[in-house]
Amino acid sequence: MPCISITPELRLRYDKVRARMGSAPALVISDLANIYYLTGLVFRGYIYVPAEGDPVIMPIRPIGLEGECVHYVRKPEQIPDVLASLGLELPLQMGLELDDLSYSDVSRLQKALGVVTTLNASPMLKRARMVKTPYEIEQIAECGAAHCAAYADFTALYRDGMTDTEFQIEMERVLRLHGGLGFTRTSGPLMEINMGSVLTGDNADAPTPYEFSLGGAGADPSLPVGATGTAIRRGATIMVDMSGHFNGYQSDLSRVWALGPVPDEALRAHEVSVAICRKIEEIAVEGLPVAELYAAALQMAVDAGLKDYFMGHTQQVPFIGHGVGIQLNELPVLTPRSKDLLEPGMVIALEPKFVIPGVGAVGIENTYAVLPSGLRNLTPYPDAIQMLNA
Amino acid sequence: MPCISITPELRLRYDKVRARMGSAPALVISDLANIYYLTGLVFRGYIYVPAEGDPVIMPIRPIGLEGECVHYVRKPEQIPDVLASLGLELPLQMGLELDDLSYSDVSRLQKALGVVTTLNASPMLKRARMVKTPYEIEQIAECGAAHCAAYADFTALYRDGMTDTEFQIEMERVLRLHGGLGFTRTSGPLMEINMGSVLTGDNADAPTPYEFSLGGAGADPSLPVGATGTAIRRGATIMVDMSGHFNGYQSDLSRVWALGPVPDEALRAHEVSVAICRKIEEIAVEGLPVAELYAAALQMAVDAGLKDYFMGHTQQVPFIGHGVGIQLNELPVLTPRSKDLLEPGMVIALEPKFVIPGVGAVGIENTYAVLPSGLRNLTPYPDAIQMLNA
Repeated sequence: MPCISITPELRLRYDKVRARMGSAPALVISDLANIYYLTGLVFRGYIYVPAEGDPVIMPIRPIGLEGECVHYVRKPEQIPDVLASLGLELPLQMGLELDDLSYSDVSRLQKALGVVTTLNASPMLKRARMVKTPYEIEQIAECGAAHCAAYADFTALYRDGMTDTEFQIEMERVLRLHGGLGFTRTSGPLMEINMGSVLTGDNADAPTPYEFSLGGAGADPSLPVGATGTAIRRGATIMVDMSGHFNGYQSDLSRVWALGPVPDEALRAHEVSVAICRKIEEIAVEGLPVAELYAAALQMAVDAGLKDYFMGHTQQVPFIGHGVGIQLNELPVLTPRSKDLLEPGMVIALEPKFVIPGVGAVGIENTYAVLPSGLRNLTPYPDAIQMLNA
Repeated sequence: MPCISITPELRLRYDKVRARMGSAPALVISDLANIYYLTGLVFRGYIYVPAEGDPVIMPIRPIGLEGECVHYVRKPEQIPDVLASLGLELPLQMGLELDDLSYSDVSRLQKALGVVTTLNASPMLKRARMVKTPYEIEQIAECGAAHCAAYADFTALYRDGMTDTEFQIEMERVLRLHGGLGFTRTSGPLMEINMGSVLTGDNADAPTPYEFSLGGAGADPSLPVGATGTAIRRGATIMVDMSGHFNGYQSDLSRVWALGPVPDEALRAHEVSVAICRKIEEIAVEGLPVAELYAAALQMAVDAGLKDYFMGHTQQVPFIGHGVGIQLNELPVLTPRSKDLLEPGMVIALEPKFVIPGVGAVGIENTYAVLPSGLRNLTPYPDAIQMLNA
């Protein structure tokens, strides 16, 4: 049976959460991604994180988890008894994950714990998780390496006459055979997706209800994202943004394939995207506002006369990337409105893309770790548009 | 661009929601599954459902949705203005989806709408959706047919020496090639899964943190569900419970494969599972408490001397199935504690399974529509354990 032990690695993480707790005397955590972050395991239950002293881990199930600080409960109403048995008094002020738990679940916890003032623990955890530990960065680097190895197999998967969906299905299989877990863990309700997205031609410009930079219309109105099941045509680009989830952490990687030559303007826009990445690799140093990364990228798009195609065409988004880790969409968000400064330990997916009408999306996406020395690319993969043999 | 129009089909659905609203003068709906139910489309935004009169549909994005009752907003704070412009006064009492939205999202809506008393709209929608319209049942029947067609291809996918994960990956591909959307839409935070689960040998008995009847340990601690990547061995069973999601609705179907003969006790337990389904097909009539379906199944397991293996072994669950529709886990829940009565229009997945130590899981799962005449099996597929050629 898995044993929960507060290893030095986990202690680092608790310390980072504590540094974000402000005046909160304690948190009660139950979101699965946060539980994974704080224990290395996924279980149903609660973690009591006091501002000082050891956490108390209270699984509901599965039974069989063992270790220091582990005390089983059947329901949240038993948390006060467990804490009392440990000589811990429940504070009147408590941090709960208001952005991640349902209203009903928070209300039940508030009542069960006798909370008088509730603080929002969600941003505390999100901001602690925004700055990865060295171990976490290595996990994402492993992910990125597996991600790149799978992408290297994609060109050979294409068969004459394939649709976008058919091409994607073969990519999904290859990612899974490389060890992909087949599930994309995301944050919030606006991220419904399977293993990623393959957008060809004008489908890259279809408006999306989700929080993806490019959406796609999808194959069915019930899931308006990604490939539509239409044939890949000569001269159109294929933007491949498939999930890299191999070990509890994720990397984000996009590359472009094409069937036959693409118009010069699309090639040029692709080169501008690569140049934006090179530029950001150069300027990204500790302390730089992430808003300046966006500003630099936008300026290069404007200078190239490609402003109207930058980050969408019909619907453009003021965004060039996002943090990535246990969930695909983490902090920081690389937008002009962000107030975050680059900090060693951040892991960011940078995706300056262009949508060229009649052609499709071009550009690249890499996942980088922010190190004291600058950016480290965790998804080293050739930048060029890859040609398919028809 | 997609056009939202309150078709006769949708009107039926609004009527069913209204019948569940009780004293609530209006609801504001924004959960994506509920938005799909009420419009046939997935978008980000809000639907105002008054107890009388037409709904008001307020998308945030994508832009481009059109139709009667459609009024764009950029944020929830604009809802009162839209309603005022239509001559509608916001009631002080309002139903919001307290089980489906985050605490933060509900709080923002309460403030934006000036709600004094909040009622929980989640159970209203869940109970309305529990009883499908004839159109919805046909969608699930289509799903079930595609699901069965894909399952018929599974035997041929097995190759000597395959692991559970490798066998599952080929099944995923086939489901996708048959039109599967590749994404399992679920309700609540405790249902993390990719396209389904393949459990062989004692992995079927691994405890799960999720709300699945059988869990499996999974390939990585970050996603403790399903296949583990271990070789399929002779004499072990392979319980295949892969997602059937083809058109916005889902069917649920489990069958067993095996490599070589399985022990007599496992064969016998499989036959008892089939017999339980036959029995329930016989006794399920309008008005019967669903708790009696559970009681009948349990009694047959007890009579067969298989009580200790029924619905798990190390951890047994008092449960033999669940409603299915837009989400995989809908109402009713077939447990001894349910107070629901069978009602024409319900669609239920019935999964009386046994876990035999040293062998694995056996039993079948079908999806049925409850009709006035009794159950209609929407997943007609041979019941027997299917043998793989080594």
